Amino acid sequence: MTHIITISRQFGSGGRTIGKEVAKELGIPCYDSELIEKVAEDSGFAHEYIREHGEYAAQTSWIARTLNAGAGLRESNQDVIWVAQRKAVVEVSKKGPCVIVGRCADYILRGKADLLTVFIHASMKKREERIVRVYGESDEMPEKRLRDKDKRRAAYYKFYTDIEWGLAKNYDVCLDSGKLGLDTCVDVIKQLYLKKSEQTEK
Amino acid sequence: MTHIITISRQFGSGGRTIGKEVAKELGIPCYDSELIEKVAEDSGFAHEYIREHGEYAAQTSWIARTLNAGAGLRESNQDVIWVAQRKAVVEVSKKGPCVIVGRCADYILRGKADLLTVFIHASMKKREERIVRVYGESDEMPEKRLRDKDKRRAAYYKFYTDIEWGLAKNYDVCLDSGKLGLDTCVDVIKQLYLKKSEQTEK
Repeated sequence: MTHIITISRQFGSGGRTIGKEVAKELGIPCYDSELIEKVAEDSGFAHEYIREHGEYAAQTSWIARTLNAGAGLRESNQDVIWVAQRKAVVEVSKKGPCVIVGRCADYILRGKADLLTVFIHASMKKREERIVRVYGESDEMPEKRLRDKDKRRAAYYKFYTDIEWGLAKNYDVCLDSGKLGLDTCVDVIKQLYLKKSEQTEK
Repeated sequence: MTHIITISRQFGSGGRTIGKEVAKELGIPCYDSELIEKVAEDSGFAHEYIREHGEYAAQTSWIARTLNAGAGLRESNQDVIWVAQRKAVVEVSKKGPCVIVGRCADYILRGKADLLTVFIHASMKKREERIVRVYGESDEMPEKRLRDKDKRRAAYYKFYTDIEWGLAKNYDVCLDSGKLGLDTCVDVIKQLYLKKSEQTEK
């Protein structure tokens, strides 16, 4: 089975940056925007729309959709994206060892690949500093942006996987990037991956 | 500030064994039974009683105690043990670098010491195998024993700290000892501790 690292992360925790660096140091691809490209091709939705709806429960249509779920109405856009995303994740997983950031890849690939599942988080304060530094200021307070993103990502994950997002027991390793630093997180993940590969080869 | 590793763990995950090994390799003490000794001296309760009530919500008196909480009744045994335990944890933390297993040490020492907070967990299946191997068979099915222990430990933690037990965001590092293996967990914790000490000394 292919060795794959999946990285779930809180918004603003630097999980994407960590994933890219791990992949670079291990010399394997990191799928993130590439996945969005694939989903865009398959679903016909625009990149930006997928970026927003491929991991976050919609703010407005969420209740409406849940209420309509049993009424035999046509699939929501979010469901169409979920199906295309699922297909894209399975496709890239077949190409060989890689890092996949987000997209519920840990759930989608469960039992289909040899996974090292990672969750990256950080305190509200550290994440506030980071999003202002990386994405710039916005009209909304950083804390409100983060709380909203956390809530919607957890709701999305729960809806499609029926698993609680961010519970330690659902991941092989969880790291506080704010406390440990991004470089240390990269080191730990790399070491665990190399050890895992060694053991499988034995 | 003193560097201290706190290890919270699911019952049967091998967290205690990992803690002892980390301490041994780092050449620092690991407090677990020693803490129980101290609490016993202070509170006057028997060791076995403390082992059971110092981390687990009581099965029978739990509801009764909650209902009575506002009624000005005398402190429960559990509260007396909590106070003695808290004192014992603070006391050992002042002696120098160490590993402390369980006893809500992560919460008790927050802000009082330089902590590396660890949570160790494993799948039900792996923990079942382990408790039968380590503690032997019992009349109760292993899964029932584990579910009961998990529930009572989480309830105890929540009651005294008001923090959810086992949420990734509450720890610096969480590791699945069943997936990664005990030795790998020891390595990761040791490396993180050494890196942390290095950084603080700079």
